[in-house]
Amino acid sequence: MHKQPDLQDIRSAHQRIRPYILKTPVLTCTALNRMVGAKLFFKCENFQKGGAFKFRGACNAIFSLSDEEASHGVVTHSSGNHAAALALAASKRGIAARIVMPSTAPPIKIAAVKGYGGIITFCEPSQESREHTAEKIVKESGAILIHSYNDYRIIAGQGSSALELLEEIQDLDFILAPLGGGGLLSGTAVAAKGLNPKIKVIGCEPKNADDAYRSIKAGHIIPSDYPNTIADGLRTSLGDKTFPIIRDLVDEILLATEEEIITAMRHIFERMKIVAEPSAAVPLAVLLSNQLDVAGKKVGVILSGGNVDFSGFFEALR
Amino acid sequence: MHKQPDLQDIRSAHQRIRPYILKTPVLTCTALNRMVGAKLFFKCENFQKGGAFKFRGACNAIFSLSDEEASHGVVTHSSGNHAAALALAASKRGIAARIVMPSTAPPIKIAAVKGYGGIITFCEPSQESREHTAEKIVKESGAILIHSYNDYRIIAGQGSSALELLEEIQDLDFILAPLGGGGLLSGTAVAAKGLNPKIKVIGCEPKNADDAYRSIKAGHIIPSDYPNTIADGLRTSLGDKTFPIIRDLVDEILLATEEEIITAMRHIFERMKIVAEPSAAVPLAVLLSNQLDVAGKKVGVILSGGNVDFSGFFEALR
Repeated sequence: MHKQPDLQDIRSAHQRIRPYILKTPVLTCTALNRMVGAKLFFKCENFQKGGAFKFRGACNAIFSLSDEEASHGVVTHSSGNHAAALALAASKRGIAARIVMPSTAPPIKIAAVKGYGGIITFCEPSQESREHTAEKIVKESGAILIHSYNDYRIIAGQGSSALELLEEIQDLDFILAPLGGGGLLSGTAVAAKGLNPKIKVIGCEPKNADDAYRSIKAGHIIPSDYPNTIADGLRTSLGDKTFPIIRDLVDEILLATEEEIITAMRHIFERMKIVAEPSAAVPLAVLLSNQLDVAGKKVGVILSGGNVDFSGFFEALR
Repeated sequence: MHKQPDLQDIRSAHQRIRPYILKTPVLTCTALNRMVGAKLFFKCENFQKGGAFKFRGACNAIFSLSDEEASHGVVTHSSGNHAAALALAASKRGIAARIVMPSTAPPIKIAAVKGYGGIITFCEPSQESREHTAEKIVKESGAILIHSYNDYRIIAGQGSSALELLEEIQDLDFILAPLGGGGLLSGTAVAAKGLNPKIKVIGCEPKNADDAYRSIKAGHIIPSDYPNTIADGLRTSLGDKTFPIIRDLVDEILLATEEEIITAMRHIFERMKIVAEPSAAVPLAVLLSNQLDVAGKKVGVILSGGNVDFSGFFEALR
């Protein structure tokens, strides 16, 4: 896929991945509606296979490959949900997934990739080492590199979540998604504006990792600089494929503090009784901070994932 | 309601409370199915209003009252989910709920009762003081005492969860429910055996609070003796109304250790991405301990509630 995806590409991606993904539920919560003063519709990708929306894009990339391409397997560098998602998607097609992970990756993430049959190559914990190691594997094995967000196949797959949400709740006034590298937000914007040009699309970014906010303001990509945020899925920089989509289709980028993100996450646990990872709580954090006038409106939220490390919590119970 | 409820009483209770309760979803989980070797259907009362099944029984009790009875309000003694559920149900009818709580009750439980408009009277942290204080309020105000489980109206209301589950998944081989005072298990057994006499009904109790297991074996109620279990909803003793129902209709009572309960709770968080309180994890703990031959069978599980104190978890994130 060599051109920027449009609504039709997202529909095609959705058709392609439908046999493998879960059609995630849309949940509502009276208590949170009351707190925000709007009608919120949470598209619960925490229930997606692999525990995050990443499986949608990974599946689309894997099942877009020709048989010849697929025969060499795939490779990616990621320390997060994309690594596990790609390994899982590759296993569905019965091909090899080579995952480059920093040697410092949390044991829980390493276990997830291994559990889905991914073949791990460890590297130094730097962007250069990650990219270099992945390129070396491409050269040696002919495996296809699938970047975690700066890839049109990935973007089209991620957009299928918003597509499902907007098919179920047709008259949303707003749709909010977390913003890290921009794969999910790009796909969400293409789907939402394609279906309804009047809908407002809002990117939600941690204040401590506001490189996308600053990039859009500056008109060019400003790389993130190892930002310190609890929303570990949102530490990445925009890419040359996600930047123009977000610049052209997203209405606004809003920021949330660490405190606001943690509070929002707690409300999701305590009020909705579901598990959301910090990145997934950023849109609710933005809504609760009253930066956006949504009074009485219908607001869609992509609740992006639920992969939380509960080791400490359960240790404390013993 | 002065006789032991039958299926028709549970149907009537369901009709009565339907406008107020949430019809909770039934969730499945591939990973847990694989671990147990059966098809599990979780009836998610953690999503119920008030965060637990208790709202069903409380609603049935409150809306069963005549206008004359209701005019004096209701009273109960409880430090757990029943207190909040009764306050919430009373607020739906617009009547007063007086809640007797031990002065040692956790602040989060006190806040929940206050949040629903309950009027709290504190007492000493003993069974005698709780009962005495409640009786005094009955005498002074004419309020109707609604016990948290030893009450046919409560039992009939709690049975509506199993009724909904069995209407949705009709050919269950087993149904499992946690067992504390026995209100939920009694209602579950009456509904399940009424709809399908062949279904096996299993009560699931913490090994550290196995008074019901011992009571059924002995043929008379053996009171629980301040048992030390993380499943704080299951520390109570059987009552004279729940004992005979469980004796006559429940096929087996099985026990889970503290370690098994915590592990099961963790699986619910990590695999299902939902929040379950320890008491709600006891049936899964029993299933994972291989005491019951459910291979290839369809198994219903009443996931009773999701009121967890996350203070420590979120403090640690800061």
